[in-house]
Amino acid sequence: MGEAARVVVFGLGPIGRAIGAALVGKTSLRLVGAVDVAPALRGRPLSEVVPGASSDARVAGSIDELMADARPDVVLHATGSYLDRVYPQFEELLSAGCNVITTCEEAGYPTDMEKAEQLGKIDALCRCHGVRLLATGINPGFAMDVWPLVASAHLTRLDSIDVHRVVDAASRREPLQRKVGSGMTVEEFRREVHAGRLGHVGLEASARMLAKALGREVMELSGAIEPVTAEREVTSRYFRVPAGKVVGLRQDLTARLEGQVSLRLYLEMYLGAPNPRDELVLAGDHTTQVVVDGGFPGDSATAAILVNSVAPALSCSPGYLTMLDLPFFGCAP
Amino acid sequence: MGEAARVVVFGLGPIGRAIGAALVGKTSLRLVGAVDVAPALRGRPLSEVVPGASSDARVAGSIDELMADARPDVVLHATGSYLDRVYPQFEELLSAGCNVITTCEEAGYPTDMEKAEQLGKIDALCRCHGVRLLATGINPGFAMDVWPLVASAHLTRLDSIDVHRVVDAASRREPLQRKVGSGMTVEEFRREVHAGRLGHVGLEASARMLAKALGREVMELSGAIEPVTAEREVTSRYFRVPAGKVVGLRQDLTARLEGQVSLRLYLEMYLGAPNPRDELVLAGDHTTQVVVDGGFPGDSATAAILVNSVAPALSCSPGYLTMLDLPFFGCAP
Repeated sequence: MGEAARVVVFGLGPIGRAIGAALVGKTSLRLVGAVDVAPALRGRPLSEVVPGASSDARVAGSIDELMADARPDVVLHATGSYLDRVYPQFEELLSAGCNVITTCEEAGYPTDMEKAEQLGKIDALCRCHGVRLLATGINPGFAMDVWPLVASAHLTRLDSIDVHRVVDAASRREPLQRKVGSGMTVEEFRREVHAGRLGHVGLEASARMLAKALGREVMELSGAIEPVTAEREVTSRYFRVPAGKVVGLRQDLTARLEGQVSLRLYLEMYLGAPNPRDELVLAGDHTTQVVVDGGFPGDSATAAILVNSVAPALSCSPGYLTMLDLPFFGCAP
Repeated sequence: MGEAARVVVFGLGPIGRAIGAALVGKTSLRLVGAVDVAPALRGRPLSEVVPGASSDARVAGSIDELMADARPDVVLHATGSYLDRVYPQFEELLSAGCNVITTCEEAGYPTDMEKAEQLGKIDALCRCHGVRLLATGINPGFAMDVWPLVASAHLTRLDSIDVHRVVDAASRREPLQRKVGSGMTVEEFRREVHAGRLGHVGLEASARMLAKALGREVMELSGAIEPVTAEREVTSRYFRVPAGKVVGLRQDLTARLEGQVSLRLYLEMYLGAPNPRDELVLAGDHTTQVVVDGGFPGDSATAAILVNSVAPALSCSPGYLTMLDLPFFGCAP
């Protein structure tokens, strides 16, 4: 093993803190600082937010404030799902010469012209500065794309992949419980879905990444987001939802690929969802069912996948990366 | 997609034929010929052995006989488990300028000095001729190494990986039923194990590959191979085993890695083994169980993994490759 890679965490929300906690346990990675815009955190010792962090690691208000001291090899970025909003942060980090691994779902794989153009700019910026940007996490990044992809390697012929992820949202962080619509009326839910402000971001990125890796064009995509309502009052650590109001969602996306291959990504994410799991059914020359009982643990798994992808991402040539560029990897030491 | 890669199958035993059949269904790969030493096959149209093969594809007695016409980009090689025995074939193929992907279990990952030296020579030969050699298959190559490795990416901390593969040998090809000791007395079984002629080849390769990918030294390895005997007469398509004789084996390997991580690879492979499956238990910051009910279908899955690894292997720089060099991949078109 070479020297431990120097890592800065950008954004100290629940996921950023989980990333920090994961880094503290690693010998191959060294948490050297963090960036967060909250005035209350600025200048504080990082160990106040991430127990176990080195005593000389601080929280800075911007990347510039800590570049000279921290000299990060890579910045693990967790501030938002939407590419538009985090793009200026990416520009700043890449221009400062930092490799970036981000949880931003929309940066995982291009899904429309506008995002393709932005990711193209990111690629150019990466190459210009000799660095990399990768977006990953449990979903998109693993549960509904890389995991079923790798599972399909044992088939000689593939007809369909069905991915069914069931998440009990009550076990997740507050922002996620909010993101699935907890506490809304059905009308509010539909309005927010219509405005593109609600629902899991990344299902289409997963489907397109899977299709690309399977070497097949997407012929047709269709999907829907539906509310799940409480039959009786449901409470979580963060929400109390009366009967009739929304506790979360069912979201699904079907992709028809060339060569008569179909993908179905089906996500159920609501407070109290029974039998949480990650289930794959792959059909082809053989039908194979893969079950992860209980499911991959969303928040810690997102932190894990970011942290574990540092070494494989840094082994790639500079540029914008997707998970498909990375070699097989597992839990980093 | 570029032009279809031109593929020759080397060795037309059950696995070679399964590889041929898998190739026939692919648009990204083109089966252009085969090599087999059997005099009865030499010069015959390949379609007599692999239904659906192109009418101009033939079976040659050596690679030289078909190089000029077939111009293979890659040779899929399936003639034996032991590196010593197939090494001359590798030398010939690599020197002829062919990329090679082989089922040879012992070539999957170095397990001792002698094999490390041979694989070092193969690496030099590959670089000299600008080609690649990769050994893979369902096991080693996937079920007990790449699959648990990828599964571990969702953990922030890893304490142990338990892999339990149960194969009903009666569902497998004749050579495999023979390889697990079917029909032997317990005494014969133990003698063959002692002579290194019996048992699954590749458990140690899988363990060492996993350890390497997890970034941890192997501190200690221990394992055993035990016979499973028939309680009453057991019959398969190829064997009739009276009560008291051997129907297969239980083989296990435990590896203690640095940083207090342990791996256990446990393989049960016998005629009539109940509840065949591939089961993983990963323990760390979270305990995750992954179950493939029925298990990955050994013979067709080995063919699949060879065929599906062609494009990812060819995307790597020349040299000796292991599965750890390859990017994430799935079922090829």
